[in-house]
Amino acid sequence: MDKLTYITKQLSRTEKKRYEHYVITRIWHLLNDLEIKPITQQYIKRPSGRALTDLYFPQLKLHIEIDEKHHKHQIENDNIREKDIINATTHKILRIDVTQDIENINNQIDDIITIIKKEKNSNRNFAPWDIDKEQNSTTYVEKGYIDADEEVIFKKSVLALNCFGYNYKGFQRGGKLHKFEDNVLIWFPKTYKNKKWLNDISDDDIYIYEKSSDEEIRKKHIEKYIKSDVKTRIVFAQVRGPLGDIMYRFKGKYELDIKLTNSKNGLVWKRIATRVKTYKYLEENA
Amino acid sequence: MDKLTYITKQLSRTEKKRYEHYVITRIWHLLNDLEIKPITQQYIKRPSGRALTDLYFPQLKLHIEIDEKHHKHQIENDNIREKDIINATTHKILRIDVTQDIENINNQIDDIITIIKKEKNSNRNFAPWDIDKEQNSTTYVEKGYIDADEEVIFKKSVLALNCFGYNYKGFQRGGKLHKFEDNVLIWFPKTYKNKKWLNDISDDDIYIYEKSSDEEIRKKHIEKYIKSDVKTRIVFAQVRGPLGDIMYRFKGKYELDIKLTNSKNGLVWKRIATRVKTYKYLEENA
Repeated sequence: MDKLTYITKQLSRTEKKRYEHYVITRIWHLLNDLEIKPITQQYIKRPSGRALTDLYFPQLKLHIEIDEKHHKHQIENDNIREKDIINATTHKILRIDVTQDIENINNQIDDIITIIKKEKNSNRNFAPWDIDKEQNSTTYVEKGYIDADEEVIFKKSVLALNCFGYNYKGFQRGGKLHKFEDNVLIWFPKTYKNKKWLNDISDDDIYIYEKSSDEEIRKKHIEKYIKSDVKTRIVFAQVRGPLGDIMYRFKGKYELDIKLTNSKNGLVWKRIATRVKTYKYLEENA
Repeated sequence: MDKLTYITKQLSRTEKKRYEHYVITRIWHLLNDLEIKPITQQYIKRPSGRALTDLYFPQLKLHIEIDEKHHKHQIENDNIREKDIINATTHKILRIDVTQDIENINNQIDDIITIIKKEKNSNRNFAPWDIDKEQNSTTYVEKGYIDADEEVIFKKSVLALNCFGYNYKGFQRGGKLHKFEDNVLIWFPKTYKNKKWLNDISDDDIYIYEKSSDEEIRKKHIEKYIKSDVKTRIVFAQVRGPLGDIMYRFKGKYELDIKLTNSKNGLVWKRIATRVKTYKYLEENA
């Protein structure tokens, strides 16, 4: 038994992926910076398909992938449809080879920490991680916009809604008309297959396909929205986060694409903006 | 959710004790010293009874205990009889209070790391952790002795035997006469209750009680050893280590205490030395 085997066994007796676990805890502790937010096991979309990265720093758009022998990161798409998936085409991915000995792995980690620190310092727009603020509608209302490139993800749909002039305590439905913009729906679709809906979202997040699993309902639904004036939607997709809970990821503003819409595709929504304006709650409008 | 909750959840999704896990991985990575051997979940004997410490550095005789709310370290003795238990009366125990916030906990950990480094540097006898050497009979043969205060623990009984002039490939029995010292048995007792034997060892390691669970056998066994010349034993107790495997912990040299020996106590062995001489294997004696 070498030291690597011994220490990783010691550190993660109940962990199944103990090399991954060693690398992740080491990067985190040695980086030693509470201004940087870490996310483990983040699903990402890449040109090659969907995959899982072991450690992700959303403020830096930086992923760490741990290369073990026989470690298969490319995953069947169907299994992760429900998960929180981000579009990682503009992201950086760094790799750590854990088939080496502990000294070598530690050196690789030191190099990666240097890169992370450099990325943080050279990023003019770097905003320190504030765990309370990031879950607060006010943050985005004060900012004046929400941007899909900033990976906004809420724990509750009401927090999304309150970025657009509302001041609700709770909200349960799948959508709500915009308070200040005409014919805009704030929409919380399940972008994965479920009993009632066969919704889907394209790998580049450009298209959302909305269709009922019941052909009769699908037809009526399409007819209704083609006739309707409400042809714009601000989308927060329902996803399952890394800890298993349902969350609402901001995807952008979409418009009904009438040409692509048909009974096979369902309603097709095409993204027209990744950034949308937010609105203050006004007392007199209550 | 605060950052502590978030990060510990992230770092140890499948870990049950996530604060403990955070502290242990952080101490280990920030200490950043492969010359120091860590052991997690080490059972120790203290005047107050047997207990479990979260992290232990055997070269420094230093334990770290993590104080969580409702974290009960004092454990029913019977449940841990089989485990590897060390006598910790001369050990130092440091505590970390994890009911604080992450900055406070990180500061406590920094302080503990400073202490660990100081202990290492001020210890003249500090021998860098060598994972191959520590499992090697030759190490102890060359040293000339084995000392119970140095926490010697072997993975196989044959490694213990080969410290005393033997050169065996394997060994399966419960004991073997010393090759060079007359009337000395090298003994590998189960010092916990099992079907055949109700052996026991005192909290201070001074007495070992050896008795058969069968009263008739017990009587004959006592008679045999009271008559025998073999009244000295070098003891490696069979224990279950932190990773669950059987190991052989050196306890010292013991002599039969005839006064205390009776059918109630069984044979009583009293420790006469914590350090014993080792012997080279001599070709001509093979």
